Amino acid sequence: MGAGASPLANDRLLRALRRQPVDVTPVWIMRQAGRYLPEYRRVRAAAGDFMTLCRDPALACEVTLQPLKRFDLDAAILFSDILTVPDAMGFGLYFVEGEGPRFRVRPETPADLARLQAVRAAEQLDYVLEAVRLIRRELDGRLPLIGFSGSPWTLATYILEGGASRDFARAKRWLYQEPAALHHLLDLLAHSVADYLRAQIAAGVDAVQIFDTWGGVLAHDAYRTFSLAYMVRVVEALRAPDGALPVPVILFTKGGGVWLEEIAASGASAAGLDWTLSLGEARRRTGDRIALQGNLDPAVLRADPATIEREVARVLADYGPGPGHVFNLGHGVTPDVDPDRVALLVDKVHELSEAYHR
Amino acid sequence: MGAGASPLANDRLLRALRRQPVDVTPVWIMRQAGRYLPEYRRVRAAAGDFMTLCRDPALACEVTLQPLKRFDLDAAILFSDILTVPDAMGFGLYFVEGEGPRFRVRPETPADLARLQAVRAAEQLDYVLEAVRLIRRELDGRLPLIGFSGSPWTLATYILEGGASRDFARAKRWLYQEPAALHHLLDLLAHSVADYLRAQIAAGVDAVQIFDTWGGVLAHDAYRTFSLAYMVRVVEALRAPDGALPVPVILFTKGGGVWLEEIAASGASAAGLDWTLSLGEARRRTGDRIALQGNLDPAVLRADPATIEREVARVLADYGPGPGHVFNLGHGVTPDVDPDRVALLVDKVHELSEAYHR
Repeated sequence: MGAGASPLANDRLLRALRRQPVDVTPVWIMRQAGRYLPEYRRVRAAAGDFMTLCRDPALACEVTLQPLKRFDLDAAILFSDILTVPDAMGFGLYFVEGEGPRFRVRPETPADLARLQAVRAAEQLDYVLEAVRLIRRELDGRLPLIGFSGSPWTLATYILEGGASRDFARAKRWLYQEPAALHHLLDLLAHSVADYLRAQIAAGVDAVQIFDTWGGVLAHDAYRTFSLAYMVRVVEALRAPDGALPVPVILFTKGGGVWLEEIAASGASAAGLDWTLSLGEARRRTGDRIALQGNLDPAVLRADPATIEREVARVLADYGPGPGHVFNLGHGVTPDVDPDRVALLVDKVHELSEAYHR
Repeated sequence: MGAGASPLANDRLLRALRRQPVDVTPVWIMRQAGRYLPEYRRVRAAAGDFMTLCRDPALACEVTLQPLKRFDLDAAILFSDILTVPDAMGFGLYFVEGEGPRFRVRPETPADLARLQAVRAAEQLDYVLEAVRLIRRELDGRLPLIGFSGSPWTLATYILEGGASRDFARAKRWLYQEPAALHHLLDLLAHSVADYLRAQIAAGVDAVQIFDTWGGVLAHDAYRTFSLAYMVRVVEALRAPDGALPVPVILFTKGGGVWLEEIAASGASAAGLDWTLSLGEARRRTGDRIALQGNLDPAVLRADPATIEREVARVLADYGPGPGHVFNLGHGVTPDVDPDRVALLVDKVHELSEAYHR
């Protein structure tokens, strides 16, 4: 629990992340506060720019709470962007409608990285920490709040590509040809991410997720060296002097199913999984050493209610009885989804999972 | 070997696919005849349209042979497109520059699939078979020729999306909501693909690869039911009355590393692997029951010669000593690659692999 935390009315998420018994399987949804909600689109339109929304603690708080008013979710997740850290480092984040994130400055040579400094979250990302404090006050002990950051590698891809990419040609050119410079950048990012997550925990988040959205594009050995190793550093940096994690840490590498054993050995509390790996197989492969989060294909939410119910049942049966499962999609909910389908999903997870926790 | 085949001067590929000893590891490269070659771009520009190039056996033959004049490759691969089958089924394939393939007709409801018929390759894809015969004559027993098809699922995605897609929203809507109709389509496609590959083998190809480019976007159980099961049907349909495969069959599911055991049990001769899975681990997981093809990250070809040599050495060391490895990239060579880098790659595979075959 975060500093000064009082017991939560609904602590299913935290119990599941610690592999403790629960009454029903907890559920939250990546991008649960997002474009599929009309009330989100209204706030977003009024704010004008996406980053204006992220930088305004009151608006970030409002948007964070929106899905909780509609759905019986077991957690709130801070509304923010994974690229706040490189933005604070001076790369100048902006968004082009329909094209994803971009940075005003892009490093071209190792020398361009020389003057970079790690982020001091308390000063440079105070707007996020203020949002955390506001949300926590509004939640008033009802539900846990999840904080998050991008992984060092994922942040590095956006920095080196100057924004979103399809083939990661630039980031991989650094990886294969300038590995020392890339390690320097990843080291700075690991320090920054650790400082940022520590600050979020101090401000009151009850769990954190590290989004390694682009770890899955790496070769197996490159994943270990350039992505996983730096996430492990972040996890280690969060530990208290006695070695305990102050809050549960979820590590989510999209496309990382082939590396599950290594992820399970990272020291994180839970591994997020996309839909390509069976949760039952994941459980056997990790020997219940780590909690598992996932893993419904988000495309299921475009189907009819009967199909959604059937697929929710399959995911729950795949994991099977006992604790250690946090229900989620395998990736974010898409903007074209009907909110009523999300409501159905959340209710069915609770209803159908009860049998697995008796 | 194909019908009427005479022994090949270079049979490394076929020996490796059968896990027989070789002097050095054979190498070919996905999209080895393609846009990174200036001589390809000249032929392509003169032909005007991409499909004109595919439909002209003399031009397809010329383009197939181009990389063999530059590089010491161990196989030719037929120049064609994976979408010739749905084109022959009447969907009307065309290409928009910079946007990938599109179809003129897109099924909207299950009723739209009712009148579809399986392709009869000998009549409807005679231009491909004529190209195979021409290439084989030109190769004159020097090298094996690889034929190919898209997998039923991969072809179905293009048909149901009406072309390329980023999220496969339509194909997955069919999968989750109209599974019976999708199975009907996949059944037709499996019959068509089997007929097409049988015809390519009769025309003289020495091995075939099934490209399951989009199998990796599926959930684990959906992959088994909607992709792998239909590739297994194709493999079974190719077998001679005595159960033997007439030529080796390579099954390549991009992103399929998590499902390697199931792929190894498919009856195919070899599994193509992308760069996310270690070949050494793949070998342990399959117990040498199947040959393995891959798996250098194509991004390595953008690096300097020393890096390319180092990464080639890592892939060879990862597989280790003994037969059963076909060197390839984990996906197609990209258009921005310098052909001299490909020459270096091919030469280094031969030079550095010798030690593993003593």
